[in-house]
Amino acid sequence: MPASFKKQSQSLHLALLDQQRQLHSKNRPVMIVIAGDDRIGRQHAINRLMTWFDPRFVRVNAYTPQEQPSSDRPWLWRFWRDLPAAGQLSITLRDWTATLITDGLNQDLDDATLARRIEQINQFEQALIDDGTLLIKFWLTLSESAHETRLTELRHTPYYDPKDELAFRRYQQARAIYEPILAQTQTPERPWHSIQGDDPQQRDLTIGQTILEQLNRWQTHRPLETGTDTADTAESSAIKVRLRQPDPVIDYAQQLEDAQSELQTLMNRAFQAKQSVICLFEGVDAAGKGGAIRRLVHHLDAGQYQIVPIAAPDEAEKAHHYLWRFWRQIPADGHLTIFDRSWYGRVLVERVEGYASPSEWQRAYQEINDFEAQLTDHGCVLLKFWLHIDQAEQLARFEARERTPHKQHKITDEDYRNRKQWSAYEAAINHMLTHTDTEHGPWIVLDALDKKAARISVLKAVIAKLKTQL
Amino acid sequence: MPASFKKQSQSLHLALLDQQRQLHSKNRPVMIVIAGDDRIGRQHAINRLMTWFDPRFVRVNAYTPQEQPSSDRPWLWRFWRDLPAAGQLSITLRDWTATLITDGLNQDLDDATLARRIEQINQFEQALIDDGTLLIKFWLTLSESAHETRLTELRHTPYYDPKDELAFRRYQQARAIYEPILAQTQTPERPWHSIQGDDPQQRDLTIGQTILEQLNRWQTHRPLETGTDTADTAESSAIKVRLRQPDPVIDYAQQLEDAQSELQTLMNRAFQAKQSVICLFEGVDAAGKGGAIRRLVHHLDAGQYQIVPIAAPDEAEKAHHYLWRFWRQIPADGHLTIFDRSWYGRVLVERVEGYASPSEWQRAYQEINDFEAQLTDHGCVLLKFWLHIDQAEQLARFEARERTPHKQHKITDEDYRNRKQWSAYEAAINHMLTHTDTEHGPWIVLDALDKKAARISVLKAVIAKLKTQL
Repeated sequence: MPASFKKQSQSLHLALLDQQRQLHSKNRPVMIVIAGDDRIGRQHAINRLMTWFDPRFVRVNAYTPQEQPSSDRPWLWRFWRDLPAAGQLSITLRDWTATLITDGLNQDLDDATLARRIEQINQFEQALIDDGTLLIKFWLTLSESAHETRLTELRHTPYYDPKDELAFRRYQQARAIYEPILAQTQTPERPWHSIQGDDPQQRDLTIGQTILEQLNRWQTHRPLETGTDTADTAESSAIKVRLRQPDPVIDYAQQLEDAQSELQTLMNRAFQAKQSVICLFEGVDAAGKGGAIRRLVHHLDAGQYQIVPIAAPDEAEKAHHYLWRFWRQIPADGHLTIFDRSWYGRVLVERVEGYASPSEWQRAYQEINDFEAQLTDHGCVLLKFWLHIDQAEQLARFEARERTPHKQHKITDEDYRNRKQWSAYEAAINHMLTHTDTEHGPWIVLDALDKKAARISVLKAVIAKLKTQL
Repeated sequence: MPASFKKQSQSLHLALLDQQRQLHSKNRPVMIVIAGDDRIGRQHAINRLMTWFDPRFVRVNAYTPQEQPSSDRPWLWRFWRDLPAAGQLSITLRDWTATLITDGLNQDLDDATLARRIEQINQFEQALIDDGTLLIKFWLTLSESAHETRLTELRHTPYYDPKDELAFRRYQQARAIYEPILAQTQTPERPWHSIQGDDPQQRDLTIGQTILEQLNRWQTHRPLETGTDTADTAESSAIKVRLRQPDPVIDYAQQLEDAQSELQTLMNRAFQAKQSVICLFEGVDAAGKGGAIRRLVHHLDAGQYQIVPIAAPDEAEKAHHYLWRFWRQIPADGHLTIFDRSWYGRVLVERVEGYASPSEWQRAYQEINDFEAQLTDHGCVLLKFWLHIDQAEQLARFEARERTPHKQHKITDEDYRNRKQWSAYEAAINHMLTHTDTEHGPWIVLDALDKKAARISVLKAVIAKLKTQL
């Protein structure tokens, strides 16, 4: 080891340690991605980084290629699951782009799939950046001759891995695949730092220096909010989107039983067919979400579905991207997840109460559309219900709850306080229904004045959707 | 449905809902287990419970038998992972005992394995009960004739499942296996409620009533603490357990490099052999735990190990059994997890600072021994290091840290405050080393006065242990 490397390594170590200690006060996550066709170099570079940082506070996410084919959730799911929280640092080996490149090499993805996945990668990275993540991506390459030399050296040692041999033989083929992908997955904000790895010490020093520069330049505070609340109060008079009137109900008990039985049969088929389903319910307090959900699952096997009630985020959830807690609850193939309130809280309560800044909730429409597109792209059935009641009906229901012993707990002062914000909520609801009513995720906006009719309608909508899908 | 069932069902629904709402204030978890040879009945009973409770706040843990053979962690791991937090209610389908019975039926477990697993079940349940969990276990049976009738009815419907047929044919064989297991996995505190399921309505009413009675009787507060702090201050003069003196170090750099390389080779073999390893480090502040850990992992592949620094538990961790957060971090086969501080905090800081009551930390010795026995029983290598320095050396190191710019952050007023508790800590340490130095989990108590020698010693101990194991 030349003295100059030792010296530079030592000073990098101290500087990076110092930055690492300050991470917590910056309150933002750091993600370092180490990818590239230099398989051995990637591993060694990460090992070196672990000696420069305090390894106890670095989370290495090393994804095995084996995990990929058995994936029974949208392909980016595990990367969302493992996102670092604010103040944490993660290093990713075999990241999303590397996964795409491997898939491209092994499975001959068609052009349309490839293009869609590249788009999803860009959406994913942009969502992280926008949320304040420092994302630093390295692509480690080796010249063809260095590759060959290294292989020859390894061939008779215990470190020899036939996969390296294979990777080398595919060298040219791989370049042809990854170069366009790299070009399409970078922007000035999140470039690929291309690192030549023929000299391993130089490679690691360059990586370390780059990380240090990025950390040094990094703002402690979030960028200034540039958005403004564009809510048009003229909008706020009423829910403007087409309201679906449920069919009148003649014999509720019989219709309910029939629909529940039919759904049970369909969900058993969905389980066999590995069809996953997401139903989400939104609506003002007392709109009847809970009642509709209970009727929906009444005949279903409890092991097959899961109800996720969404309340205010806890500390761990607040420390992550707002979509993180929903990604973690995405059903595995064959299962049903029901969200009682959902990610739309970002553009409803968080907007109205000011928990999300204008620029945050404004970009959320697109982020949510992208997120839902990934769900349906994976093959998941997505049903979005908005249960609609007006202000007078809500008041009547609040008062009725106060007279019913086992429903009194459902009503608090806060519910009445929220009513004062009615027009602000109406503006937010109209915005939401307008901006997130997409082809892949259409809203079903139900008039829920008649509770029973609304419940039957929900069941019928799920049944109809499943029938077209199975 | 006879009117009387409808009426009883409705009143159970209201009463259970009411109890469910009060759960949060009780600050303890509820676990309901539904097992039995009545496969269809089990499922229907859970479905009924979901209509009586508010299903949004019930977590159903339905384990698939398929999960079992692929398990690469101790067999009770997933049950620990999914424990409800205080204030939560879970229903478990195919629980630990059911898993054992299925294994008994399918794999012909030898008597010794069976006996050990029964013991582990009792330890597991007792640990939960002691921690304040309300555990209610049901065993659903069907008479042989009812079983046959039900099968005949099902045979030409879509609900027919060949597995039910198989279960019926094994009826007598299964009874012979499960009856002794049930007898051995109950105590008056946690009995199996045996429910005859020939009449499904009666079955569900009995289950509902039993749950209601248990919830009604349940104390809001934890049982009175009966233990007393038996710490003998005479003990507290010094660390009494045999202290291992590390070999003197001649050429540190060379010895370190050699040991790290050897460990690297061994860990690669461990990965191939699917050998999991746990190393835990305890010791007073400034004993050199972090430095020893950094040297230990220096040559290892970052994807193969994980360092888990243990700090004060967060809110979610506090709401669970204290071992829960450690169970979740148990390495999968082939991986290494290093705990920088560990579950021994229960009998060290939590004892000394009074976060755990005397009866809590006193029973922790046995709970920890049981926990570690499960790790080694699964085949995991367990190494427990206590790095020892005396009070004078600690003070010298604190002062040295204050003079070193990149170590100043490591020293806070709290460190000095902790020093005042030195004798209380010494008593706790002596107790711990005496009560948890077991055959399967022996302590390696290292004199860490010479940092470099201690680091080499740690490496050598891990190497020696791996060599005997691989």
